Amino acid sequence: MAEEMMNNKQIILKHYVEGYPKESDMEFKNNNIKLNVPEGSNVVVLMNLYLSCDPYMRSRMKNLEDSYVESFTPGYPITGCGVAKVLKSGDSNFQEGDLVWGMIGWEEYSIVTPTQSFLFKIHDKNVPLSYYTGILGMPGITAYVGFYNVCSPKKGETVFVSSASGAVGQLVGQFAKMLGCYVVGSAGTKQKVDMLKSKFGFDEAFNYKEEQDLDAALKRYFSDGIDIYFDNVGGKMFDAVLLNMKLHGRIAMCGMISQYNLKKTEGVHNLLCLIAKRICMKGFIVSDHFRLYSKYLEMIIPQIKGGNIVYVEDIVEGLENAPKALVGLFYGRNVGKQVVMVSRE
Amino acid sequence: MAEEMMNNKQIILKHYVEGYPKESDMEFKNNNIKLNVPEGSNVVVLMNLYLSCDPYMRSRMKNLEDSYVESFTPGYPITGCGVAKVLKSGDSNFQEGDLVWGMIGWEEYSIVTPTQSFLFKIHDKNVPLSYYTGILGMPGITAYVGFYNVCSPKKGETVFVSSASGAVGQLVGQFAKMLGCYVVGSAGTKQKVDMLKSKFGFDEAFNYKEEQDLDAALKRYFSDGIDIYFDNVGGKMFDAVLLNMKLHGRIAMCGMISQYNLKKTEGVHNLLCLIAKRICMKGFIVSDHFRLYSKYLEMIIPQIKGGNIVYVEDIVEGLENAPKALVGLFYGRNVGKQVVMVSRE
Repeated sequence: MAEEMMNNKQIILKHYVEGYPKESDMEFKNNNIKLNVPEGSNVVVLMNLYLSCDPYMRSRMKNLEDSYVESFTPGYPITGCGVAKVLKSGDSNFQEGDLVWGMIGWEEYSIVTPTQSFLFKIHDKNVPLSYYTGILGMPGITAYVGFYNVCSPKKGETVFVSSASGAVGQLVGQFAKMLGCYVVGSAGTKQKVDMLKSKFGFDEAFNYKEEQDLDAALKRYFSDGIDIYFDNVGGKMFDAVLLNMKLHGRIAMCGMISQYNLKKTEGVHNLLCLIAKRICMKGFIVSDHFRLYSKYLEMIIPQIKGGNIVYVEDIVEGLENAPKALVGLFYGRNVGKQVVMVSRE
Repeated sequence: MAEEMMNNKQIILKHYVEGYPKESDMEFKNNNIKLNVPEGSNVVVLMNLYLSCDPYMRSRMKNLEDSYVESFTPGYPITGCGVAKVLKSGDSNFQEGDLVWGMIGWEEYSIVTPTQSFLFKIHDKNVPLSYYTGILGMPGITAYVGFYNVCSPKKGETVFVSSASGAVGQLVGQFAKMLGCYVVGSAGTKQKVDMLKSKFGFDEAFNYKEEQDLDAALKRYFSDGIDIYFDNVGGKMFDAVLLNMKLHGRIAMCGMISQYNLKKTEGVHNLLCLIAKRICMKGFIVSDHFRLYSKYLEMIIPQIKGGNIVYVEDIVEGLENAPKALVGLFYGRNVGKQVVMVSRE
């Protein structure tokens, strides 16, 4: 088999990161890659199209010992969810020309072993391909599983979503509205807050950065309390929400973007509310629920095509801009799901 | 109907309490009481026998606004669970001479309205009557519901119980052993730690006051992590446990005795573990589950009579000693369930 040696631009993590990540923690580098499948191997050779920037990736920039995710390896490319095209395949589930999404490298070409990681074939191409990094990918299943399964929502309940304009939050809000819930979201800029109401149909929204007293802000929108809190941020907001939960409320713990860059996480003081209010609080990891993916697609694709669900992405072009995009997540610079376009289809 | 005016000694809460409660926050007082049921009333007149000292009573010494329990009223007797004898009854469910347990006053005689509070008739008297303040009363159902329902335990799982020699903890530990779990408990004196192993059959036990590093202590006993944590204390222990939970672990939040006397509760920093480990954490209140009481009795009474379950009480005699007994709870002075005997049967 002829070996094609190609130039492969990559985003390398230079070292483990403390505090807020900086662009200079990453390096844009040229490497070479042989785009071939060795005899007897089941690897798949991919040309990468879109990369997903997700908050959980911050954890992987640390030296993790005992975590559900693996640390990135300093000196090697960052990895994350992305959309790609199959160039060659040693796995009978994938053919040349297939479009896929799954765990790929932050680079132009990746060679992955589908049995060691995860790679889903993309069947429906009548939607923007980038959606497979978001609403049709990991954040989508996260919102679906987190809201419907973890929160056990009922029509008419009151729902609060933090980081509500993000990849997951915007979907949770829309799912809750579809079910007939009252939904309030928080975000960090006026533009995002406006978007929550005008674009995603949240009943109310507020800018948490402009609130002196988060407890008071929540009481303004939830005079009778919160049945469901979909937590994407942790920290002070979480503590304020505890004071405002209703009896038998449910909290889905999806992520804690406010805490990832702190050396010591903020202390949460109001856990006694969990007892008094009989709250059920659950952490979950989307990859445990991938078996629900096809069921989710059956539900969501018609909703997208019918215009019942909207999805806002923030797409930057060029792999070289990926570090800036990833760093921007932690400053809330993205408006909607942050995606990096590596190559046009 | 002839009115019997009687002397009625009472324990009065003098004022709302800040910090650790003191005996001087309460007052031993003589009052008069008419031991009669007014025409058409459904009250029940009780002679009180045993009073229960429970950690949650600390909350009721505060001015609570929005809680699952009501504040005590300064100037009036403290109320709590207790065992009593029916002297007169306006409620057809209770007859003169019945023994009952339920919410009564810290006084010699109480007049209660069973429909407004709760009062259970005691059917089985071939056990110590004081047990109806503990293993056969509220702490018993708490341990039963909290362990079997909230924790969803399975044979062979690893269980950690804090405040393990207390009314609830000693039962949770024994239930877990009956199911074939590995059980470790923490307590605050050598005597209690010894009792956990020798009397209640815990696999291991440790004195949390002698541990510099609670995380290290837990790792010593749970090298592969904790499946179930039955939390009676909150605070630092809770935070250390979070670091040691297993994937898909469960935490029952029963109470937080370490936090009740603090002006500001300690911050909990390790909640991110709930996500990484997919933990389910639930607060619960025993009174929501009283419907399971008769089922619980059917299970537990044969176990007591058969000697499979033991129960340790710390009984002080005399209503005048009740304040000291209650205060002692928060210093861990009691060994086993703290009970006050008001009157011999």
